[in-house]
Amino acid sequence: MISQNCLHDALSYGKCFTGLGRPADYIPELARVNKHQLGVCIVSLDGEILKEGAYDRPFTIQSISKLVSLILALHDRGGEYLFQDKVGVEPTGDPFNSIIKLETRTRPFNPFINAGAITVASCIEGKDTEERFGRFLTYIRHLCNNDEIYLNENVYLSEKSTGDRNRALAYYLKASGILEGDVEECLDFYFRMCSVDVTALDIANLSAVLANHGTNPFTGENLIEPSCAKALRALMLTCGMYDGSGRFAMKVGFPAKSGVGGGIAAVVVDRMGIGVYGPALDEKGNSIGGIKILEYLAKKLDCSLF
Amino acid sequence: MISQNCLHDALSYGKCFTGLGRPADYIPELARVNKHQLGVCIVSLDGEILKEGAYDRPFTIQSISKLVSLILALHDRGGEYLFQDKVGVEPTGDPFNSIIKLETRTRPFNPFINAGAITVASCIEGKDTEERFGRFLTYIRHLCNNDEIYLNENVYLSEKSTGDRNRALAYYLKASGILEGDVEECLDFYFRMCSVDVTALDIANLSAVLANHGTNPFTGENLIEPSCAKALRALMLTCGMYDGSGRFAMKVGFPAKSGVGGGIAAVVVDRMGIGVYGPALDEKGNSIGGIKILEYLAKKLDCSLF
Amino acid sequence: MISQNCLHDALSYGKCFTGLGRPADYIPELARVNKHQLGVCIVSLDGEILKEGAYDRPFTIQSISKLVSLILALHDRGGEYLFQDKVGVEPTGDPFNSIIKLETRTRPFNPFINAGAITVASCIEGKDTEERFGRFLTYIRHLCNNDEIYLNENVYLSEKSTGDRNRALAYYLKASGILEGDVEECLDFYFRMCSVDVTALDIANLSAVLANHGTNPFTGENLIEPSCAKALRALMLTCGMYDGSGRFAMKVGFPAKSGVGGGIAAVVVDRMGIGVYGPALDEKGNSIGGIKILEYLAKKLDCSLF
Amino acid sequence: MISQNCLHDALSYGKCFTGLGRPADYIPELARVNKHQLGVCIVSLDGEILKEGAYDRPFTIQSISKLVSLILALHDRGGEYLFQDKVGVEPTGDPFNSIIKLETRTRPFNPFINAGAITVASCIEGKDTEERFGRFLTYIRHLCNNDEIYLNENVYLSEKSTGDRNRALAYYLKASGILEGDVEECLDFYFRMCSVDVTALDIANLSAVLANHGTNPFTGENLIEPSCAKALRALMLTCGMYDGSGRFAMKVGFPAKSGVGGGIAAVVVDRMGIGVYGPALDEKGNSIGGIKILEYLAKKLDCSLF
Repeated sequence: MISQNCLHDALSYGKCFTGLGRPADYIPELARVNKHQLGVCIVSLDGEILKEGAYDRPFTIQSISKLVSLILALHDRGGEYLFQDKVGVEPTGDPFNSIIKLETRTRPFNPFINAGAITVASCIEGKDTEERFGRFLTYIRHLCNNDEIYLNENVYLSEKSTGDRNRALAYYLKASGILEGDVEECLDFYFRMCSVDVTALDIANLSAVLANHGTNPFTGENLIEPSCAKALRALMLTCGMYDGSGRFAMKVGFPAKSGVGGGIAAVVVDRMGIGVYGPALDEKGNSIGGIKILEYLAKKLDCSLF
Repeated sequence: MISQNCLHDALSYGKCFTGLGRPADYIPELARVNKHQLGVCIVSLDGEILKEGAYDRPFTIQSISKLVSLILALHDRGGEYLFQDKVGVEPTGDPFNSIIKLETRTRPFNPFINAGAITVASCIEGKDTEERFGRFLTYIRHLCNNDEIYLNENVYLSEKSTGDRNRALAYYLKASGILEGDVEECLDFYFRMCSVDVTALDIANLSAVLANHGTNPFTGENLIEPSCAKALRALMLTCGMYDGSGRFAMKVGFPAKSGVGGGIAAVVVDRMGIGVYGPALDEKGNSIGGIKILEYLAKKLDCSLF
Repeated sequence: MISQNCLHDALSYGKCFTGLGRPADYIPELARVNKHQLGVCIVSLDGEILKEGAYDRPFTIQSISKLVSLILALHDRGGEYLFQDKVGVEPTGDPFNSIIKLETRTRPFNPFINAGAITVASCIEGKDTEERFGRFLTYIRHLCNNDEIYLNENVYLSEKSTGDRNRALAYYLKASGILEGDVEECLDFYFRMCSVDVTALDIANLSAVLANHGTNPFTGENLIEPSCAKALRALMLTCGMYDGSGRFAMKVGFPAKSGVGGGIAAVVVDRMGIGVYGPALDEKGNSIGGIKILEYLAKKLDCSLF
Repeated sequence: MISQNCLHDALSYGKCFTGLGRPADYIPELARVNKHQLGVCIVSLDGEILKEGAYDRPFTIQSISKLVSLILALHDRGGEYLFQDKVGVEPTGDPFNSIIKLETRTRPFNPFINAGAITVASCIEGKDTEERFGRFLTYIRHLCNNDEIYLNENVYLSEKSTGDRNRALAYYLKASGILEGDVEECLDFYFRMCSVDVTALDIANLSAVLANHGTNPFTGENLIEPSCAKALRALMLTCGMYDGSGRFAMKVGFPAKSGVGGGIAAVVVDRMGIGVYGPALDEKGNSIGGIKILEYLAKKLDCSLF
């Protein structure tokens, strides 16, 4: 399907661009990483795993966790309710942490901007944050085939203590009747889910499940409803790369979700899941080297949807 | 200067309009008042006091407290710092609780919209909320010539428990580096200062001090720096009636500050302070009967600035 | 591949929804159509043509013409220049005729909102409007396999006389240095290209060329650069259905471009082009029956990209 | 009332600041002036005229003409209609040429931002632009006591050929049903009225009429309805200095209207009219030296309203 050489070349190509970006700097834990790190991992649906570079380097999952929380919320509430009453499914031209449209439109535009993801987080069931986060952790371990996925306590505490912009979004949503339950509990869950440590390998496994219509390609266990996996792939394509999703669709052309920790989860349906890690970000908040690797692979493997 | 008859007529005129408005309804304490109440009180600088209607009916001061907190903050920090680094002095066409411009301009437009008033509140010195609110209470009692001004505990608790829109503003300001200190402490102070019970007479006394260049007309005690009183009068004229300030300047024409509790503090410089109370509000959040009383008086007393 | 029966059922299904929408009403020519009309046509890449309902009913192409003008502009100027300097490729959460983001971001977000399409129109070469529109007409006739495609003179004149919102966009773009050349000439071309009469069959033929990587499936003639056809398919998916593109991607899942005349051009890559016509629009400006037909076909033919 | 020495000192003070600003540069005619020019003229209501510096240097009136056109439109249509249906009387925090709020609020916020002034211009009666501009010219000559006021043909042609941002506003207003009549004719009038040459002396005369409740202090002729003069003074205070009106009210404190040609018309009611000219503008578009002169005079003459 794809040779180790090809993956090696993809990584080398990506490395040419890491100097042009910079790591997220809103918390010291993210700011002090080596921005030239780059890793990639491919999990094909026939069980082959290919890896290159810093594929096993842990990083915080950040916004990629929004995939997992959305699946949980869709399971708990159903798409009918969630996408009608709580959050839209439309891309927005605004940055991921923008608050402006909440004043004019009430409902967040989609589940991948922060306002939408916080809303979704408030819809996950559980008697308290502990229980909700426990469900999240159990679930993501299944999706990533890795029982060793844990919270990065330092990042979590940093996120929590500096997360005032997200707090503003959450209280605004509460005031508008969108966010359910207690705001600080919801935010506590949100900051935790963003602060889980993963590797490119973990992310590739998660993506492979999405590529395989929700079924773990190794165990055959169904982890996501096929229709839900399909909805997620569509959302990832239109909204997954923040306000750079349009360009990514044109240049790469398959569903992906990025996080400011430097990860990108990418899905080649019926073929493979790809995980990349590169903490140097472009001005939209997407991994600059990661995008270049995916561009390279999309061309070599001819796997753009377009 | 002005006869009791004239004031009586002003009140009667105002009463014709109370049916067109409605009380603030975001907390039950405000919603359940009799909207036809109307009162007015004039304190002239030569010490005469005229009163009509529900002039001694207590109501929560709400945004009129922004005058008092601004004076305290100007005293503690100076106008140079406050109006340069923290808050502008420009009217904005947006509603008083709007968050939109914070994303594009950072600094709140003026100290009378909620975002600006919360910022100002965070600049008042004191080792804790207790001390800050103690200073506020002592000071407003001096300004209003009334030692019996207290917190309305029920309104305070209601404001605090429903104040998520203000919380959103505060956390947004914190995230932008505008708001100083602890957000929840600042909000606690803010909710308290808005929940103080006053009467139209109290408000008239406060306004008389502003009309008298900062000096209490009865005691001769200087309570506000003259330059500060002048700055406040200018700000009241351009920004004091929310996004209805332009029309108020044209129709009435002197400095005023309204609150959603139904009060308006109005200043006829070198002549008198006026306090009105009427909880039926127009769509901008200003007392509808109160504005009509002031319109009537402005004409009768020929005291528009224009 | 697909039976006539299946297409018949799709049409019947779509007919259930036409009552919920209404035709565009900004000009009388559009307002007075029978809103229950519905037609569909499929052109498969092996040359089969299936049609149902009002497939040969002429309607004005409106925004579907933006595909054609974009191809011409990309040919004349190249994607490097066009997508860098003139127009973005990102979806925007705003309505198709919004002007707000032009003040904060200068460049239109994408070529399918009106501001972007007017910009693109200004980049098509030709010594005057006549020549530019001549090129457009010749080209669309090739794409649609139909030499009988003409301007609808009445609609054109109506569009021109009522097009003040588009005029505002164009002059704003001119003032910002985005729009090239003469504004009124550009608008004249824009109004003409939107006022060309086509049928669902024409649109299906055009879509089949996009599905076939730019090559006419009947003649084998290459009409669009394959890379350009690919870019268009990506853009159609993220931005083609106005601010309803996200939901369409989730529910239907292939590239499409709608027009307020009631048409939708839809592309199932490597398989077929689909043209639908149904003038009853939803609140986003998309054919309500047309979307339902495409939803039905996407499910039956299993041709979502996701 | 005021000595020549005092005025001389005011000018000297203002000169310290001209280096900090720069002339409007959107047309060459404005850009190429000597930015250190500064002049001031005072016309007191008892007929005294004091002048200093470049008081007789012609400059284009620009936005100060909005006073004159507003008086004409109020005369032709009445305030009831104009301020209800066509244009608001509220300050806006946006720049004078902003288009954003037209999309969310329809009616321009006030008659002194460009959108509002263009709307007002469309309400002036006259069978064609010639007649309307003839009325304007006759009227402004009366207001300025100067029969030699003419159109600056070069500036007019430049304004007309580069006025695409204003064209965008006008077509947007037409599309929203706000602007009356033919757009290009309205703009032609608007560009002409902005391109009239005046001096600081002319502007001082005009301001003196406003200070004198509408009556020419020399001839005793009533030129403006007193209630209209009053409405204008209120509007000038809240909206006359663009989005710098709040600061101007606080620092200077009387009604004024500026233009990007460098002029400011300032009104000290019952006392005097002041005209200043200084083409170096601050970032809001107001004469930087002119504001300083007015600040100086407000303090020396103790003529702030606050």
